[in-house]
Amino acid sequence: MPKSEKYAVGVDLGGTNVKIGIVSQKGKIIKKISLETLADQGPDKVISQIKKGIKELLFKNNLKIQAIGIGAPGVVASKKGTVENPPNLPGWNKVNLGKILQKEFKMKVHVENDANVAAIGEMIFGAGKKIDSFIMITLGTGVGGGIIYKQKLFRGEIGSAGEIGHTSIDINGPKCNCGSFGCVETYVGNHYLVKRVQNEINAHKDSKIWKLINNDLNLITPLIIQKAAEDHDEYAKSIIQNLGLYLGAALASTANAFDIGTFIIGGGVAGFGKPLFDSIEQTIISRVLKPIKKRIKVLPAKLKNDAGIKGASALVFYKS
Amino acid sequence: MPKSEKYAVGVDLGGTNVKIGIVSQKGKIIKKISLETLADQGPDKVISQIKKGIKELLFKNNLKIQAIGIGAPGVVASKKGTVENPPNLPGWNKVNLGKILQKEFKMKVHVENDANVAAIGEMIFGAGKKIDSFIMITLGTGVGGGIIYKQKLFRGEIGSAGEIGHTSIDINGPKCNCGSFGCVETYVGNHYLVKRVQNEINAHKDSKIWKLINNDLNLITPLIIQKAAEDHDEYAKSIIQNLGLYLGAALASTANAFDIGTFIIGGGVAGFGKPLFDSIEQTIISRVLKPIKKRIKVLPAKLKNDAGIKGASALVFYKS
Repeated sequence: MPKSEKYAVGVDLGGTNVKIGIVSQKGKIIKKISLETLADQGPDKVISQIKKGIKELLFKNNLKIQAIGIGAPGVVASKKGTVENPPNLPGWNKVNLGKILQKEFKMKVHVENDANVAAIGEMIFGAGKKIDSFIMITLGTGVGGGIIYKQKLFRGEIGSAGEIGHTSIDINGPKCNCGSFGCVETYVGNHYLVKRVQNEINAHKDSKIWKLINNDLNLITPLIIQKAAEDHDEYAKSIIQNLGLYLGAALASTANAFDIGTFIIGGGVAGFGKPLFDSIEQTIISRVLKPIKKRIKVLPAKLKNDAGIKGASALVFYKS
Repeated sequence: MPKSEKYAVGVDLGGTNVKIGIVSQKGKIIKKISLETLADQGPDKVISQIKKGIKELLFKNNLKIQAIGIGAPGVVASKKGTVENPPNLPGWNKVNLGKILQKEFKMKVHVENDANVAAIGEMIFGAGKKIDSFIMITLGTGVGGGIIYKQKLFRGEIGSAGEIGHTSIDINGPKCNCGSFGCVETYVGNHYLVKRVQNEINAHKDSKIWKLINNDLNLITPLIIQKAAEDHDEYAKSIIQNLGLYLGAALASTANAFDIGTFIIGGGVAGFGKPLFDSIEQTIISRVLKPIKKRIKVLPAKLKNDAGIKGASALVFYKS
């Protein structure tokens, strides 16, 4: 390893697992570890899990670590390093994660919201490397968003900007967990998607999905839909097409508001691949204002499984 | 007049009239003039009208004019000073208005999109004076928008950011002039609003609007609706209430995306006053994400009739 290479610790704090890695400035993971978050045991336990993981990783390690970067759910005040009301971490209210870890490891700690971390990760290591401004969308249980404007994270007033998943595409649409109606998340979020297919599929008796789930509706997952679509099932293909319509409608509004034409899409459902990306792109182009049309590009994210670790470490290289 | 006071020429280029004024750094209009745009005679004629107006205004004038500011419709590349495809100015394609006027008057010329000008005007002279970040909405034939983020105009990639009027609130809603569907402009823009009332009013035989329009549906205007509402007409009040629902739904999505909590609303329909503002504010608060709820404020614009002239002159004081 060249002596000049710099390293960071990246922490991906999720509701189920904490994933931690040592990452080089070139985005290579040198070593990584995953621990249970143990979220139900409260913030003190979670913090001790994070500490334990970092310690294990740094043990017998001679690399020069610049700093620690953490991607956390919830509202993150990145200047202070506090994490507020993360949805899947009960009992947190407001925890100064940055300060706690800084004290423990005697090095600088950068904390940022996980959707923003995904955007910074793509900017530093991924599909957004050479792109001045783009909007990162992460498709999973929810629909996360992060905005890179002129190579900087657009944070808004308190750091919660980029909540594109809560763009309503139907003022009278289905009720969203957030309390609003018709948020695009209620159309394309994993749970909602599966539920919709469970409700609709009786009208598609000849769909290949039936065989793949052995007639058990509980076995429907995005991956099952993907497999059926790859096997040319018309219903499965229409599901993916419609996801693109819903997302595209929301992203056209976003593109009009920000005048940003590039979207990078990551997360599980992005596995639907080209048919999804084509549907999103065509929908945005058909709906967006004329001055933006030509600039619309919908790209797949480059960071896959270790996106969280790499993105968190990118916080260090981005800031420094 | 104190010697230290600085002055600018502000030009408000509209489809019908060009309004031009000399404005002090404190936002006082010293002298103003209005000419017909003569848009149907093409760009050369319009430009000669602008020149004529400025010359008349500057004639026998000893004030030290710093520069000229222009608010123009369409996409404006403010660095270059070009105006592209303004909707109500036929034959323009792309005109370098900045360069042309700079040559004629030998002083710096700032050109900006008219919705952005409204935002800058409120920031420098109006309701946004002490506010770090806000979103300006101008309600008229269309729904214009301009975004101030940390006391700077947020322009996007080519300067067309802030098109909040083309936030779709119903993916399958009415077709918009822009080609998309369900844009909030198709619910609250003047023409659409009047058309909707013309269609609905037969179901409201006892509305006081009938008397105000002498039973002639062609006489329906926002002002008529306002008068009926002020006279406690239930139908007119419900129209205003619904405008707030439509706008509030769009602005909640905008607030979630930008993490900006303050909205300043100007333009004709804003004359509906407190009932409209209350409905917008309550709708946003009920729909926006939790971290933003407490920060939501919907304020009336302070610059009224001369908003265009003052805003355009604000470009000069903002930039310098």
